[in-house]
Amino acid sequence: MTDPSVLEHDSFVRRHVGTDHEAQRHMLEVLGHETLDQMLKAAVPSTILLENDGAEAASVVPQGATEPAALQELRELADRNTVRRSLIGMGYHGTHTPAVIQRNVLENPAWYTAYTPYQPEISQGRLEALLTFQTMICDLTGMDVSNASTLDEATSAAEALMLARRTAKRNGTVFYVDSDALPATKAVLRGRTDGLGIELRERDFAADGAPEGQYFGALIQYPGASGRVWDPSEVIAEVRSTRAVAIVSADLLALTMLSSPGSLGADVTVGSSQRFGIPMGFGGPHAGFVAVRKGLERQLPGRLVGVSVDADGNPAYRLSLQTREQHIRREKATSSITTAQVLLAVMAAMYAVYHGPEGLTRIGRLVADRTATLADHLVVSGFELTAEAFFDTLEVRATGRAQDIAAKAAEAGYLVHTVGDDLVHLSLDETVTDDDLRAIAAVFDGFAPDPGHELADVGSGTDWGTLVRQDAFLTHPVFSSFRSETAMMRYLRRLSDRDFALDRGMIPLGSCTMKLNAATEMAGITWASFNAVHPLAPREDVEGYLEMITQLETWLADLTGYDTVSLQPNAGSQGEIAGLLAIRAYHASRGESGREVCLVPSSAHGTNAASAVIAGLRVVVVDSDASGNIDLDDLKQKIKDHGDELAAIMITYPSTHGVYEQEVRTVCELVHDAGGQVYVDGANLNALLQVARPGEFGGDVSHLNLHKTFCIPHGGGGPGVGPVAAKAHLAPYLPGHPGIQQAEHPVTGQGAQPHGGSPVSQAPYGSASILPISWTYIRLMGPEGLRHATAAAVLAANYMAHRLSESFEILYTGENGLVAHECIVDLRPFTARTGVTVDDVAKRLIDYGFHAPTMSFPVAGTFMVEPTESEDLAEIDRFVEAMLMIAKEAEEIVSGTWAKDDNPLVNAPHTAAAIATGEWTHPYSREVAVYPGSWTAPEDLSTHDSAQMRIQSKYWPPVRRVDQAYGDRNLVPTWPRETD
Amino acid sequence: MTDPSVLEHDSFVRRHVGTDHEAQRHMLEVLGHETLDQMLKAAVPSTILLENDGAEAASVVPQGATEPAALQELRELADRNTVRRSLIGMGYHGTHTPAVIQRNVLENPAWYTAYTPYQPEISQGRLEALLTFQTMICDLTGMDVSNASTLDEATSAAEALMLARRTAKRNGTVFYVDSDALPATKAVLRGRTDGLGIELRERDFAADGAPEGQYFGALIQYPGASGRVWDPSEVIAEVRSTRAVAIVSADLLALTMLSSPGSLGADVTVGSSQRFGIPMGFGGPHAGFVAVRKGLERQLPGRLVGVSVDADGNPAYRLSLQTREQHIRREKATSSITTAQVLLAVMAAMYAVYHGPEGLTRIGRLVADRTATLADHLVVSGFELTAEAFFDTLEVRATGRAQDIAAKAAEAGYLVHTVGDDLVHLSLDETVTDDDLRAIAAVFDGFAPDPGHELADVGSGTDWGTLVRQDAFLTHPVFSSFRSETAMMRYLRRLSDRDFALDRGMIPLGSCTMKLNAATEMAGITWASFNAVHPLAPREDVEGYLEMITQLETWLADLTGYDTVSLQPNAGSQGEIAGLLAIRAYHASRGESGREVCLVPSSAHGTNAASAVIAGLRVVVVDSDASGNIDLDDLKQKIKDHGDELAAIMITYPSTHGVYEQEVRTVCELVHDAGGQVYVDGANLNALLQVARPGEFGGDVSHLNLHKTFCIPHGGGGPGVGPVAAKAHLAPYLPGHPGIQQAEHPVTGQGAQPHGGSPVSQAPYGSASILPISWTYIRLMGPEGLRHATAAAVLAANYMAHRLSESFEILYTGENGLVAHECIVDLRPFTARTGVTVDDVAKRLIDYGFHAPTMSFPVAGTFMVEPTESEDLAEIDRFVEAMLMIAKEAEEIVSGTWAKDDNPLVNAPHTAAAIATGEWTHPYSREVAVYPGSWTAPEDLSTHDSAQMRIQSKYWPPVRRVDQAYGDRNLVPTWPRETD
Repeated sequence: MTDPSVLEHDSFVRRHVGTDHEAQRHMLEVLGHETLDQMLKAAVPSTILLENDGAEAASVVPQGATEPAALQELRELADRNTVRRSLIGMGYHGTHTPAVIQRNVLENPAWYTAYTPYQPEISQGRLEALLTFQTMICDLTGMDVSNASTLDEATSAAEALMLARRTAKRNGTVFYVDSDALPATKAVLRGRTDGLGIELRERDFAADGAPEGQYFGALIQYPGASGRVWDPSEVIAEVRSTRAVAIVSADLLALTMLSSPGSLGADVTVGSSQRFGIPMGFGGPHAGFVAVRKGLERQLPGRLVGVSVDADGNPAYRLSLQTREQHIRREKATSSITTAQVLLAVMAAMYAVYHGPEGLTRIGRLVADRTATLADHLVVSGFELTAEAFFDTLEVRATGRAQDIAAKAAEAGYLVHTVGDDLVHLSLDETVTDDDLRAIAAVFDGFAPDPGHELADVGSGTDWGTLVRQDAFLTHPVFSSFRSETAMMRYLRRLSDRDFALDRGMIPLGSCTMKLNAATEMAGITWASFNAVHPLAPREDVEGYLEMITQLETWLADLTGYDTVSLQPNAGSQGEIAGLLAIRAYHASRGESGREVCLVPSSAHGTNAASAVIAGLRVVVVDSDASGNIDLDDLKQKIKDHGDELAAIMITYPSTHGVYEQEVRTVCELVHDAGGQVYVDGANLNALLQVARPGEFGGDVSHLNLHKTFCIPHGGGGPGVGPVAAKAHLAPYLPGHPGIQQAEHPVTGQGAQPHGGSPVSQAPYGSASILPISWTYIRLMGPEGLRHATAAAVLAANYMAHRLSESFEILYTGENGLVAHECIVDLRPFTARTGVTVDDVAKRLIDYGFHAPTMSFPVAGTFMVEPTESEDLAEIDRFVEAMLMIAKEAEEIVSGTWAKDDNPLVNAPHTAAAIATGEWTHPYSREVAVYPGSWTAPEDLSTHDSAQMRIQSKYWPPVRRVDQAYGDRNLVPTWPRETD
Repeated sequence: MTDPSVLEHDSFVRRHVGTDHEAQRHMLEVLGHETLDQMLKAAVPSTILLENDGAEAASVVPQGATEPAALQELRELADRNTVRRSLIGMGYHGTHTPAVIQRNVLENPAWYTAYTPYQPEISQGRLEALLTFQTMICDLTGMDVSNASTLDEATSAAEALMLARRTAKRNGTVFYVDSDALPATKAVLRGRTDGLGIELRERDFAADGAPEGQYFGALIQYPGASGRVWDPSEVIAEVRSTRAVAIVSADLLALTMLSSPGSLGADVTVGSSQRFGIPMGFGGPHAGFVAVRKGLERQLPGRLVGVSVDADGNPAYRLSLQTREQHIRREKATSSITTAQVLLAVMAAMYAVYHGPEGLTRIGRLVADRTATLADHLVVSGFELTAEAFFDTLEVRATGRAQDIAAKAAEAGYLVHTVGDDLVHLSLDETVTDDDLRAIAAVFDGFAPDPGHELADVGSGTDWGTLVRQDAFLTHPVFSSFRSETAMMRYLRRLSDRDFALDRGMIPLGSCTMKLNAATEMAGITWASFNAVHPLAPREDVEGYLEMITQLETWLADLTGYDTVSLQPNAGSQGEIAGLLAIRAYHASRGESGREVCLVPSSAHGTNAASAVIAGLRVVVVDSDASGNIDLDDLKQKIKDHGDELAAIMITYPSTHGVYEQEVRTVCELVHDAGGQVYVDGANLNALLQVARPGEFGGDVSHLNLHKTFCIPHGGGGPGVGPVAAKAHLAPYLPGHPGIQQAEHPVTGQGAQPHGGSPVSQAPYGSASILPISWTYIRLMGPEGLRHATAAAVLAANYMAHRLSESFEILYTGENGLVAHECIVDLRPFTARTGVTVDDVAKRLIDYGFHAPTMSFPVAGTFMVEPTESEDLAEIDRFVEAMLMIAKEAEEIVSGTWAKDDNPLVNAPHTAAAIATGEWTHPYSREVAVYPGSWTAPEDLSTHDSAQMRIQSKYWPPVRRVDQAYGDRNLVPTWPRETD
C-alpha cells in the first residue's frame, strides 16, 4: 500500500516505524494477510475506511520532508519571531534555565520519554524529584501538602475554586476573585464556573476588605497583578471566619522575600513554578501547583507523591491517594487530577536544588533591589507609582503616554505591559541586567517630567513592613547537597538511572501510545526564538509562531476531517472540557440549554464521565454488548428516555476495547437525529490517522492528544497538549483568550468562525513551545508516512495479540478477529486458575526488563497492550516471550513446585540488594529471580543481540514491591522537615 | 585570597569548583593552613609564585562572565561566520549527523566525559563501539586490522609512512607520495619527514606508474584529490614486488562503490571517517584511521580494541597490544599511538550501524549519480572535465575563469575549490539536494560555451570498469539490528550504561585532570555556524572563528607567559612534536643543527621521550634525586657531556611526581646557559594557572592540553587539543599551513612573528570546532576564577594525600610537606605486606563505585591520584573511605580470614551475574562482594545521601576482570565476519 518512496533511505518514516518491510511481511504471514492494505480492509469498517490514494487521503498535509529539510523549515519559522526582553510579567517571567538541567533533563530521553509513575518500582527517580517539588512548594508557600503539579496558574486557581466549593458546600454559590488577579485567571475561572451555578464576583480586597454575605471562597493575588504588595492576613482571617475557603495565588520568587501565604492564614495557595528555570515558551508548558493546609489533602486536585515502604521495609516513593483520580471516580470525579506537568515540575525542583535557599533568596533580593532602584529613578524623574510597596512589578502612571512608552520600549528591545493609555507595568526578573535597567530608565526619561537623573546603584528599597519573610525554607539536605555542576549532573543521572523509560525498552501501555519521540522532533523546543517569547508578546513579534500554529491547526483539521482546531487546551482533559463546553454553548445558542444529558458508553475512559460532570453535564451510561461494542438497543432506549435533554454522546474510536466498532456511523446518526452532538475522544487517533476521519464519520468535536499520536513525549507524566477539533458550527464556542494575538483566531475550514469561548488555559495558545514537536512529526511523515504508521501500529497489535493468545485470552476483537492498535489480554481465567494476579505479572515483567501494560483498564483483571508502530519485531517478540515464560512460571505454582506465597511472581520485582544481602530462603534460585528464563544462554559474538549482552544491560529496579496501602494510611507528602 | 565576587550566586566559579567556602575551610584546617593563599605560598616556590593581585595576575583575560552572558558573546562570534554549502572537498565533506546520534552521544555526558578505556571492565560500551568502528574500517577498506582511530587523514598518512619505514627498513630512505594526494597530506608528510633523513618525492602514479629504484613506501590517493578514479592495482603490485609498502589513502564513502584497497593489494589503508556523520567543524575533530593487512598488526599505530575473556570466561573487550604505546616504550617509541578520536570514532561507527550497508551504499550511489548528472551537464554545456572516471569530485577546466566562477558560486551560496585560474573542483556529498544541483549548474551556465541545457534527471554515469565493488561489507548483525531510531537510542543507552564516566562519579586520574566539562561550555560545538564550516572556507566566511581563535590564543599566551600560541596541534602529542620541531628549526636557523640531544628527566611522561625521537632528537635521561626531583648534579654532568649537541630539556611542571620542584628556575638557567632550549610540558598546567607562568620562569615552549586544564572533555579517549605556546624567537617555527585563512598568522605577543613551520595537522586550526569549549571556560572563570580553581585543585590533592596517609604512604612531597595538584600513593609496601597488588585495588575500587586512579605511572606499584577542583568534599571523602576500607580488607588476607587466592580483592570486580548465578563458594559474602562496607546502613530520609540511595545508584560492571594476556595472544580485532 505504501508508496515505496516514503520508506526510502533518507525517509524519516523508516526511522519512526520500528518494523521494516521484511518484518512486516513476516508478521502479516503469521496473521494470514497479504498486505498491510488488505489487513486494514479486514479490520476497519468499509463505511469509514479511506481509500489509499495519496491525493484523496490528504490534500493539505505536505509530502514528508527529510529530517534536515524539516528542521530547516522550522528554523525559518522560528526566525520570523522577534525576541525582545519581556518586562510584561502577568504570570510569566524571564529566567535562566541552568545548562546542566537543560542538558540532563529537558534534552535527555531518560527523563522526557518516561511515563506517568503509576508503576512506582520503576519510577523512583522522578518520584523523588516530585517529592522535592512538593517540598519546595510547601516550604515556600507555608502550606502542608502540595500536589505534584497542575497545568498552570489559572487552571490551578480553577481547581482551587472547585476545592473550595466541595469543602464549603453550605456556603452558597458565590466566589470572590481579587480585582488585582491576573486577567487570564479571571477568564479561566469564568469559563469553568459558567453553567455550574457558581456566581463569580470581583472585589478589590486591598481597598475594600473581605466581602460581606455568604460565599464559599475567595482568591487573593499576592503580590497583585499590578505589582502591589499588601498584607492580606486580615482579609484571610475574615474569609475563614465565615467558613469560606481562603485561596492565595502567589508568586514563588516573591515568597523568598515575603511572608508565606500559610503564615498569613491561607487555606490554599496556588501558583506557577515557571520562573524557576522554565522558559516562557510563548505560554508553556510550565508546572502550576495547588497546595493546602492539613485537613484538605483529600480534597487536593492533582497528583500527590508520598513516601511508603517496599516489601523489604525500605522507603519507597509512590503516588498517594490515587483513588481521587478521575478515571477511577468517573462521574463522581470533581476535577481532572491526572493532568500534570511532571517534566517541568522536575526542572523547577532541580532549579531549587541547584540554587538552594541562599541562591533563591539572592535571586529574589536581586530582583527586588533592581525593581526598587528603577522605582526610585521613575519617582525622581516625576512619574507616579500606583503602589507603595512592590516586589518585582511597578505600575507606572503615564497619563495618555502608555502606548507611546510601550512603542519606545519595543524599539529599545523591551516589551512592557500597558493598561489602557495611562498605565505601564514593568516586571523585572533574574535575567534583567544593570544594562537593561539603564536602558529602561532611558526609555522613561524620554517621557519624564523631570528627566536626566542618574540611575542610583542601589534603590532606597520598598517597605514590606510585617510582610518581610522571617521563616526558613528549603531546609532539607537535598536543597544543599548538589550545588556544583558536577554534583548536580550526577544527581540527575542517579535519579534517571532508577527509572525505566522508552530509552531502555518497550512501554506497551494500552491507550497511552508510548511511541518514538524523535530527537529531530525535540530539537526546536530549546531554540531561544521559540522559548524566550512571552505569551502576551505583540502580534508583530510572533509571526513565526502564528504561522507554525496555523499550519499545525490546518494539518490537524485535515487529518481529522474537522473544520477548525484550537491548540489552546494544554492537556487532553482540558480539550475534553473545552469540547463539551462548546457543545453546551452551541445548544444554548439555539435556545436548547435544557440539553444536559451526556451519554457515555460503559467502556469509556473514566475521564470522559469526569469531564462531562466538570462541564456541567449529567452522565448517563450506555451499556456494552457481549462483544464489548455499544449496545445499539440500549443506546436507542437512552436516547428515547432523555429526549430533549440529550446534549451529546462521548465515544472513543477505536473503542477503549481496542476494536474498530462496525456501527459507529449508525451511533452517530442516531444521536444526531435526536438533536445531540457527537464527541469523539481522540485518544486512539493513532489507529485512525489517514485511515478514517472522525469528522467525516459523524463527529462534531474531538480532542486530540498531541502527547500520544503526535509524538510529544510523556515527560514522566506531562506536559501534554489536547487540542480540540470541531465542525464549523462549534467554532464560535471553542476557547478564545483575552490576550490572543490574532484579531480573528485562525480558522482552518470553510465556513468556520473565530473562536469565542472562554479560555481553558492561562496562555492564548496553551503549551505553545512544544507544538514544534508535533509540527515536525507531521512534516517529517507526510500523509503517506502517517498512513503507514497507522497500519504498522495495527499490524503490531494484531501480531502481538495473535502470539499472546498462545497462553492468554484476548478479550475483544472486531470483525475478522482483528483488533485495532491495542488489545486487551484477559488475565482473569489465568488468575482464577493460578492465583497469579495482574499485579504479580506486571511486577514480574520488571524482572524481565519491561514496563507493564495498562492494568485493569478498561476491564478489571486485564492488561491492555499497545506496542505502537515504533517498536521493532525483536522487541515485540521479546515481550511476548516474557509473557509466555511468566505463564509457564505460574504453572510451577499450580503444580506445587513453588508455594503460593513464595514464588518469583508474588515476590517480584527483585532488586540487586535482594539477591546480595541476607540469606536466600526462596524455593527458586537467585538466577531465576533476576535473570529469568533463557537469558543466561552462552555468549555468541556472531549474533549481536546475545544473551550475555542482555545480562549486561539489565534494568535493576531500585526498590521491591511498594506497599500502596501503607502509603495512603501514613501520608508523607514532603521530605522530612526540621519541624518534623 | 579570592575576591568574594567570583564566588557570588551567579558566578560560574562556584558551579565549577566542587568545594564551597565551608568545605575549603574544613580542609584547610585539616592541613593546618589558614587560607588558600597561605597554602599556595607554602606549596609553590616563592621564586615563581605570582602575587595574588587581579590586575597583575592577568591583564588580558577578561573578568568572568555569567553563563548566559558568555554564551551570548560566543553566539555573536558564531554569527559572524557565514555558512555556505561547501563543494570544496579536499578531505572534508558535508554530512548529516543523525539527530539520534548527536543527542545521545555527542550531547550526552555519559559518552563525552568518559576516559580512555584503560580500565576495560568499566569501558565495555565504548570498547564495543570502537570494535564496531574497526570492523567498519576493515570491511570497507578490505584490510584485516584497523586501529580504533587516529587524528585525521594527513597524520594517519604520516603514521603509515613511519610504519612503512619500520617494516621496510632495508628499502632505503625514499618515500613516494601521489602528486594527486591532498595538499595537506603532502605538507604534513613533509613536516614529519624533515630531519629524519627521509626523502619525500612526489609522483603521478596514474600517469607514470610505479617508481623505479629503491624506496620504502608509496602512498596513493584513491580517488585522487582531483576526483580522478583509476585502477592502482598494478602500481600497488609493483610497489610490493620491491618489498616497499603500498599505502592507499582512501575515501570511505567511495569504497561503498569502488573496489577496496585490500582487494587491490594494498598493505595499508588510511583515511578519515569524517563524512560518516561528523560535522566538518572548520577542520575537526574527526576520526582518521590506519588499517593494515595481516602480518603488520604489531606495527600498527594507534589504539587497537580486541576481544578477550573475563574471569568467568565471558567475552570482554579491551585495548590490545598496549605495550606498543609510546608512554611505555618511551624513547623506543616510533609513533604517538595514544592520540585517538574516540568520541568521533564512536559517532562514525554508529552512523554506519544506523545506515547499515544498504544505507551507506544508497548514499554512495546517490552522491555518485548526482555527480554524474552534473558532469553530463557541464560537458554538454561545453566544459572539459580532466578525468574520465570520478566518484564525487569533478575537476572542471575553465581556463582563466576559475576565480570568477568561484566568486559567482559564493554569491549563490556555494564554496568551490580552485586550482590556479584554470581549474575548478566540485565535490558533492549526501547533503547536496537537487535544488543545489540546479543552482550549481546555473552558476556554470553563466560561464559556459554552450549554456541553457536542462539538467538531466539522471546522469549517464561514470565508468569505473573493473573497479566496481563486488564484495559485501558490514555483514555482521550489529550493522543491521538498529535501524529504527528507537532501536538506535536504546542501543546507545545500553552501551553507555556499561561505562563509568564523570556523570557517575569521580575519576581521580593523576596527570589526566578529569574535571567538570560544563554543559554551557559544550553548547557552542553543535551550532551550525561553527560546525558546518569547511576548514578551507575563505577568510571572509570565517571572521567569527578567527576572532574567537585569536582571543583564545591571546588568553592562553597571557596565562602561560608566552608570546605566541598555535592552536593547530589536535592532540597533546602533536603539540609536543610541534614544539620540538620548532626548537630544532630554531637551532638550525642559527647554524646549530648539530644540537640533537634532548634531556629528559627519568620521571618524565614517556610520551616526552617518544616525541623527542619522532622529532628527530636523541634522548638522554637525567636522574632524579631521592625526593623525586631532577638531580641537579646529574643535570650539570649531562649538559657538560653533550656540550654543543644539547638541543633542549623537556621538563614537566609541577613534575609528574606531583610536586612543585623548588629548583625549576635553576634548571632552566643551566640549560639556557649551555645554549639549550627549555620545553615545559603543560600536562600539569592546572596546578599553575594564575599561580605561576612557565614562560616567565624559564620555558621557551610548552604544549597545553585543552582537554585537561581547559575543560574539553576526554570523550572516552579523544578528541584533544594540544596547542603549542612559545616565546617570540620560536614563533616563526610553529606550525603554519598551506591553506590558512590569515595572510599572517595571528600573533599574540610583542615581537612575535608569523608561524611558518610545517603543519602538524590536516586542518589549519586543527580541531577548531571544539575550541569554543575552552574559550567559554576561560570566559566564564575570568582571571580570579582560574586562580581559585588552581588553589582548590591543590587543596583537594593535599587534603586527599593527608587523609590517605592514614593507611598508605605518599611517595613524594615538596617543601612544607605539600604536594601540588596530585599525589603518588605508594602501594609497594602495602603490596609487599599483604600480597594485594595495584591491580587488585584498582579493580576493587570498581565494586565501591570508583574509577581507579592512574596505575603505576610514573612509578611502578603506585597510584597517582588527582581529585581536581571539581570534586566536592563528599565525593572526596567517599573515595578516601573506600581506599581505607580496602586497606582494612587487605588485613583480612594477612590475618588469614580470607585466602590469598580467594578474597574480594583478587576477585574484583564483581558483577551482578556473579552473585546471581551458580553456587557461591567464596569465604566472603555476596554482600561484601558487591556492597562493601557500611553502605548497607539503614535508610534515613532526613539526610539526603543515605546508604539506601547509594545502593540504588550502584554502578554494576558488565564483566569481571578481563584477561589481558589472553587477548594479546588471541588477537580478535573485529566482530566475527561471515568469512571467519
